[in-house]
Amino acid sequence: MPERIFNFSAGPAVLPLPVLEQAQRELLALPGVGASVLEISHRGKPFQSILESAKSRLKSLLGVPDHYRILFLQGGARLQFSMVPMNLMPGSQAPPDYVLTGSWGKNAVKEAEKVGPLNIVWDGKDTNYDRLPSPEAWRPTPQAAYVHITSNETIQGVQFSDDPDTGDVPLVCDASSDILHRPLNVSRYGLLYACAQKNAGPAGVTIVIVREDLLARSQASLPGYLSYQLHAENNSLWNTPPSFGVYMVDLVARWLQEDIGGLEKMHAQNREQANSLYEVLDNTNGFYRGHAQPNCRSLMNVTFRLPSEELEQRFLAEAEGQGLSSLKGHRSVGGIRASIYNAMPWEGVNALRGFMQDFATRNA
Amino acid sequence: MPERIFNFSAGPAVLPLPVLEQAQRELLALPGVGASVLEISHRGKPFQSILESAKSRLKSLLGVPDHYRILFLQGGARLQFSMVPMNLMPGSQAPPDYVLTGSWGKNAVKEAEKVGPLNIVWDGKDTNYDRLPSPEAWRPTPQAAYVHITSNETIQGVQFSDDPDTGDVPLVCDASSDILHRPLNVSRYGLLYACAQKNAGPAGVTIVIVREDLLARSQASLPGYLSYQLHAENNSLWNTPPSFGVYMVDLVARWLQEDIGGLEKMHAQNREQANSLYEVLDNTNGFYRGHAQPNCRSLMNVTFRLPSEELEQRFLAEAEGQGLSSLKGHRSVGGIRASIYNAMPWEGVNALRGFMQDFATRNA
Repeated sequence: MPERIFNFSAGPAVLPLPVLEQAQRELLALPGVGASVLEISHRGKPFQSILESAKSRLKSLLGVPDHYRILFLQGGARLQFSMVPMNLMPGSQAPPDYVLTGSWGKNAVKEAEKVGPLNIVWDGKDTNYDRLPSPEAWRPTPQAAYVHITSNETIQGVQFSDDPDTGDVPLVCDASSDILHRPLNVSRYGLLYACAQKNAGPAGVTIVIVREDLLARSQASLPGYLSYQLHAENNSLWNTPPSFGVYMVDLVARWLQEDIGGLEKMHAQNREQANSLYEVLDNTNGFYRGHAQPNCRSLMNVTFRLPSEELEQRFLAEAEGQGLSSLKGHRSVGGIRASIYNAMPWEGVNALRGFMQDFATRNA
Repeated sequence: MPERIFNFSAGPAVLPLPVLEQAQRELLALPGVGASVLEISHRGKPFQSILESAKSRLKSLLGVPDHYRILFLQGGARLQFSMVPMNLMPGSQAPPDYVLTGSWGKNAVKEAEKVGPLNIVWDGKDTNYDRLPSPEAWRPTPQAAYVHITSNETIQGVQFSDDPDTGDVPLVCDASSDILHRPLNVSRYGLLYACAQKNAGPAGVTIVIVREDLLARSQASLPGYLSYQLHAENNSLWNTPPSFGVYMVDLVARWLQEDIGGLEKMHAQNREQANSLYEVLDNTNGFYRGHAQPNCRSLMNVTFRLPSEELEQRFLAEAEGQGLSSLKGHRSVGGIRASIYNAMPWEGVNALRGFMQDFATRNA
């Protein structure tokens, strides 16, 4: 076993070790197939069975109702920022609503604005995106094409802890950085999308869960690759899918089902791990200052500052020396960010917690 | 070592065994990094060095001039079918030209027609796409936005054996199924694109080689992910790239450089392997009927029919029983297709050749 660091990268991010080990064992030849998953035709039976298994496991883990389709696409959340408005705006009575809780939501708005007008129904910029709106602070515009939220903002570290009820207006959610971290009430959503490289697999595969009735909005004039309807009609095989990515999503979902025991248990572990780090922020007399307001803290990305940039540099260098890697905050906000996605083991969280306590004691 | 079949799939397709073995060795942790290539941040030094290595190896293998950019995108050739016209049509004096030599060219036209008018300057449909036009049979329209060709048509098995000279009109080439199979004169092209899953890597990464001056045609109104200019400005890191795919392209390029000895040698092997199969077609008294005219035969996809569909079924079943897999022709043309991309070992070609000769003797 080669030595592995504790990888706190915000994404691509740590994957479950048993998943990596299985992928490694099978990399020259899938059992009974005689060729690598990297080499097999996407139209042959071995890949078909991987694709169906991945869909079926996601459906089971998330409780996806039958009238939703699960798609595996490419292009990451960035392409979804365009696909969502290009598919869902046409034919609607009113423009879409966007709830802006951080940097990724702002990027989504930039792309949607190219497609048509939209309403920003809440914007956290006045408090530097350190909080979420209360349910009373935003209401979808009646007959809006959809309302878009970002369930977890990786850069600011703020996260919705529930599934908002938006009534008849389809709720569209960028769940890139927290899909599969807790059970969802999928029926609250019109469309969920998530690039895989935080909780669900490697970079290069994007999961889309879409309510079937919304597929009718995709116009025939759309660029083919950008049409949800074409992908759904062809069961994600309109073109060659990112087959290795789909295989990895299937392995991660199996790990969630069989090793973790489902999303309730995953959620409990995520809460405990995040709380054990937030406790340090709250109990070092202000040495660490969390960015997010306590009631909106992300279970995935713990963001905080130290008393000075010099101390932050020292913190990062010492952490790296102890095998605690990729803790630097995003360049747009600075400071420290500990990303503790589903696959982060307790050993990593405990090592970081111990280091943080020790560092504070030595430098307070 | 697990048992491996000979995989004649048209794509995703066989990969070089030493490449798979290296990927397997490093899958839990890249040497000196302590994390899998599947887990590391695309903005960290380890991935930066993989990205630069992949670009530099491709540049060296293909002799890419300095005024071209090499990009790694997602979405396969299908997304390029849209990106090419969406980026290159605006601002041009005249519509683009398309040369139609098979099924993939037709798919490219379908997407381009959504963007604007175009000219089909040659169409092989009257002879069922069994040949290519002579250089005299097509001339680009003066001031055309670009002229598009498909260097190798996987379904019909016809292939350009040189780099057409289109003068001042930018030549755009879908090289998905034959990039890196021979040296290219890249300066003849305005833009080359190739999904990786035949000669260059796994599904999920697309190589684009584009002349810098063409980037200025990308309009700011384009969906962000669809802008060549944005990807070029950000060195393929506008969003998270398909990092494992880029890593695999780097390993395949290293194999071409160090194990094969460059593209001249790769071309020689490809010619010899293809000829050894075409010889069988030509020397079995018409038992096998090649689809492509002899002067346009593909070195990548050897397509042929047998005297009856019943014999074709028997051929496929017996071949599969001997570990010669995925020889079924595309559903749109039927018959047999042996895809023998760069990574097909001589053992596979020889085994297929022997089987074809034996099958003909027994069933003629």
